[in-house]
Amino acid sequence: MFQFEVMARDGRARTGRLITPHGAIATPAFVAVGTQATVKAVSPEELREIGVQVIIANTYHLHLQPGEDLIEELGGLHRFMNWPGPLMTDSGGFQVFSLGAGKEHGVGKIAPIFPEEEAGLHDRGGHFKARGTPLVRVDEEGVEFISHLDGSRHRFTPEKVIQIERKLGADIILVLDECTSPLHDYAYTKEAMERTHRWAVRALEEFERTADGRRASKQALFGIVQGGAYRDLREASARFISSLEFQGFAIGGSLGKSKQEMLQVLEWTIPLLPEGKPRHLLGIGEIEDIFAAVERGIDMFDCVAPTRMARNGALFSREAEAFRLRIRNAHFKADPRPVEEGCRCYTCRNYSRAYLRHLFEAKELLAMRLATIHNLFFLEELMRQVREAIRKGRLAELRKEWLSGRTKPMLSSPEP
Amino acid sequence: MFQFEVMARDGRARTGRLITPHGAIATPAFVAVGTQATVKAVSPEELREIGVQVIIANTYHLHLQPGEDLIEELGGLHRFMNWPGPLMTDSGGFQVFSLGAGKEHGVGKIAPIFPEEEAGLHDRGGHFKARGTPLVRVDEEGVEFISHLDGSRHRFTPEKVIQIERKLGADIILVLDECTSPLHDYAYTKEAMERTHRWAVRALEEFERTADGRRASKQALFGIVQGGAYRDLREASARFISSLEFQGFAIGGSLGKSKQEMLQVLEWTIPLLPEGKPRHLLGIGEIEDIFAAVERGIDMFDCVAPTRMARNGALFSREAEAFRLRIRNAHFKADPRPVEEGCRCYTCRNYSRAYLRHLFEAKELLAMRLATIHNLFFLEELMRQVREAIRKGRLAELRKEWLSGRTKPMLSSPEP
Repeated sequence: MFQFEVMARDGRARTGRLITPHGAIATPAFVAVGTQATVKAVSPEELREIGVQVIIANTYHLHLQPGEDLIEELGGLHRFMNWPGPLMTDSGGFQVFSLGAGKEHGVGKIAPIFPEEEAGLHDRGGHFKARGTPLVRVDEEGVEFISHLDGSRHRFTPEKVIQIERKLGADIILVLDECTSPLHDYAYTKEAMERTHRWAVRALEEFERTADGRRASKQALFGIVQGGAYRDLREASARFISSLEFQGFAIGGSLGKSKQEMLQVLEWTIPLLPEGKPRHLLGIGEIEDIFAAVERGIDMFDCVAPTRMARNGALFSREAEAFRLRIRNAHFKADPRPVEEGCRCYTCRNYSRAYLRHLFEAKELLAMRLATIHNLFFLEELMRQVREAIRKGRLAELRKEWLSGRTKPMLSSPEP
Repeated sequence: MFQFEVMARDGRARTGRLITPHGAIATPAFVAVGTQATVKAVSPEELREIGVQVIIANTYHLHLQPGEDLIEELGGLHRFMNWPGPLMTDSGGFQVFSLGAGKEHGVGKIAPIFPEEEAGLHDRGGHFKARGTPLVRVDEEGVEFISHLDGSRHRFTPEKVIQIERKLGADIILVLDECTSPLHDYAYTKEAMERTHRWAVRALEEFERTADGRRASKQALFGIVQGGAYRDLREASARFISSLEFQGFAIGGSLGKSKQEMLQVLEWTIPLLPEGKPRHLLGIGEIEDIFAAVERGIDMFDCVAPTRMARNGALFSREAEAFRLRIRNAHFKADPRPVEEGCRCYTCRNYSRAYLRHLFEAKELLAMRLATIHNLFFLEELMRQVREAIRKGRLAELRKEWLSGRTKPMLSSPEP
C-alpha cells in the first residue's frame, strides 16, 4: 500500500508522490506538526482546505498522554483525531534529546542560540527548555527519562517505540534514535550514532515481528541518519541506515553550528541514500532552508515554525523582513489590508490586519487560529510553487523570486 | 428596516421574528456574546452553521480596545468582525456596575455568590472581579471609570454611549443605564433608577439627533428597565421606559437575591411593556431560566454561560447533572461516545468524549473550540424546540421534558 514515484527532476531536486493507505502525498511536501494529536489552533477540515497533506504526531507526547492503548482502543490515531489523511509519528528521539543533552547544553538542532521563536523552528516537539539538568539516561538497551508532565519515570527501547507506534497506527513511523547535541564531541557523537544503528536494526526486527496480517502493509518504517556535523560519521550513517530495509529515510539530529554546516550535512548524506525512496528532513522549515533542502533532494520535512510563529503573532509575508509580519506592531492598528495582498487563504479573504491585531491585543483565541491558517496556507502555497517549478525545470528561478534581495545572506546553492 | 411580528402565542410566551437590516431573528432567540468583536473560540462561519442568529458585542470593551473610531473607519463592526448577520451592542452599563458596586459588594446580577463559573452566567462582559475597591464614580452627567486594561480614566455619558454605538454600527443598540447591586438599599436603587430614566431620555434625544439620512433606519435603540428587586420601582421603571419611543426593551440590573426574586421581577415588569415590541432579558441564560423567562413573555436574552462553561470544560448534556458534563472527569478517559448521543453538532459528529478530554488535559486550543461549538449548538437546538413548542401550544410539555426529574428545584411556572 506504499509506493514512491519520482515524476520529475530539476537538478538534484525531485517531485513525485508518496502513496500511503490514507492517500497520496505530493512531494516535496511540508508535514504539519500535530504533536498531541491536533495541529494547534486548527481543525482537520481547515487543514484540508489549506492544502495540508500530512500531519506528524509525536510518540513521546502521546505515550505520556493519553497513552497508546487508549488511542488503539478508540480506533487508532486517524479516527481519534478525525484526520482521514496520511499521518506520521515521530519516535520521541528528539524529545529525549531535548530533555537530555539539549537541556544540558541549552541548544536545539543547530547550536547558536536563536531568539526563542527561532529556536522553536528546530524543535520537533515543543518542549525545548533552557539550559538545565538532563532528565535522561541513555544505555545500550534504550533510554530512561522523566516525564515533563508529572515527573514519572519511563523507558523507551527501539522495540517499545515500535510497539507504541503500531498501536497509534500512523502511516509512516520513525525508529527511535539518539539525537546528539551540536556541542557533543566527535567521540560521543560516534558512540551515539553506532548505538542508533544498533537500535535501527532492532526496530526493524520488531517492526517485522509485529507485522501481522492486519498490519503488514499498513505502516511504513523510516530509518534515521545520525552522525552530527562530522562528515565521516554522516556518510557512515547514511550508508549503514540505507543498507537496511526501511521504506524511507529521515535525516535527524544535530545539524551543526550554522546553517552552512546544516547544508554540508545534507550534501554529505543525501547522495548516499537510495534514489527510489523518500527522504525526510526532520524539524527544519525556514523558507530559505526549504529551498536549500529541496535543491539537495529532500522530499519531506516537518516544522513547528509556521504554527508556533502564528501563535506568537508572526505572520508569513513575502513583503516583510525575514518573511515575518509582526501583526501586533502598532503600525497595523488601522490597516484595512489583509495580511498578504492576493493571498487566497480564509484569513486574508475575510479579515484585515487591523482586526487580527485587535484579536491579538485582546488575547482572543480566534487570533491564533486565523494566524495559523494563514501561515500554513502560505507554506503550502510555497510548496505548490516548488513542485510546479521542479516540473518545469525552473526551481532556481523560483528560489530567486522568493529570496533575492533578502537582508539575510542567501544560503549557497548546491554544486551543479 | 426594523419590524417585530408575533406569529404565535402559548400563554404569555410568544414566538415571532424581529427583522433587522442584517436579517431576521426568529424569537425567542439566544444572543451569543461576542464581547470583543469575536465570540470566543469560534468563527463566524461556525456560528452560522450552529444556527446562531445574532451576536452582542460590548461598547465598554470596544471603546477601550480597539476604539470605535477605528472600527468605523474600517467599515463598522459587521465588516470588522466578518459577521454579516444581526448584531447588538450592550451599552457598558453592566461593565460600569462590575467595576463599581459589583466590585465593592462582590456580587453579580443575583446576589448569592455562585461558584466562579456560575457567577459568569450573570456577567455581561467578562470582567467580574472579586470584592474590592470600586473604580467608578456616578453623577448626574454620567459615569467616570478606570479602564481595566491600563488604568486610564474614561467618562461615559448617555450621549457619548450613543455616539460610540453609532460608530460601531450594530443593528440593535442599548442605552446607558446604571446597574445597581442586589445589596443596594431601596433609597439608592430608586435614586439610580430615576437617574437611569433621565439618561434614557437623553439617550433617545442623542439617538434622534444623530439619525442623519445614512443612519436613520439602520439602528434600533432599546431602553433598559431598572429598579432592582423592588416591586414599585420595577413597575415605575417599566411604565416610564415603555412610555418612551424605544424600538424594544431590555430588562437589566439587579435581579434580586434568588432566582425566585428574578422571576418576580419578570412578573412585575413584562405585563407593563408594550405587546408589539421585543423584550430582551440581559445576561440570563441558564436552561431553567430560559424556560421561566420565555413563559413570562421574554423574546431575547444573552448570556456568556454556554461559551464560558465550554472553555472550562463543562459541556451541555441533557443526561448530566445540572445539564453539565464535566469533560475533564477521569470517567470519560476512554469514552468513545460523543458528548451527547444524537447531537448533530460538528463536535458530536466527529469527536469522542475521550478525545475532547485529551484536548483539555493537553491544554490544546481545539478543546475550547469544540466545546464552544457543542454548547452553542445545544442552546440553539433548545431555542428551536422552544419556538416550535410555542407554535404548537406545548411549551409546558417541552419544559417538563427538559426539566422534570432534575435535582435542582424547578422554578415555579407563571400564573395561568
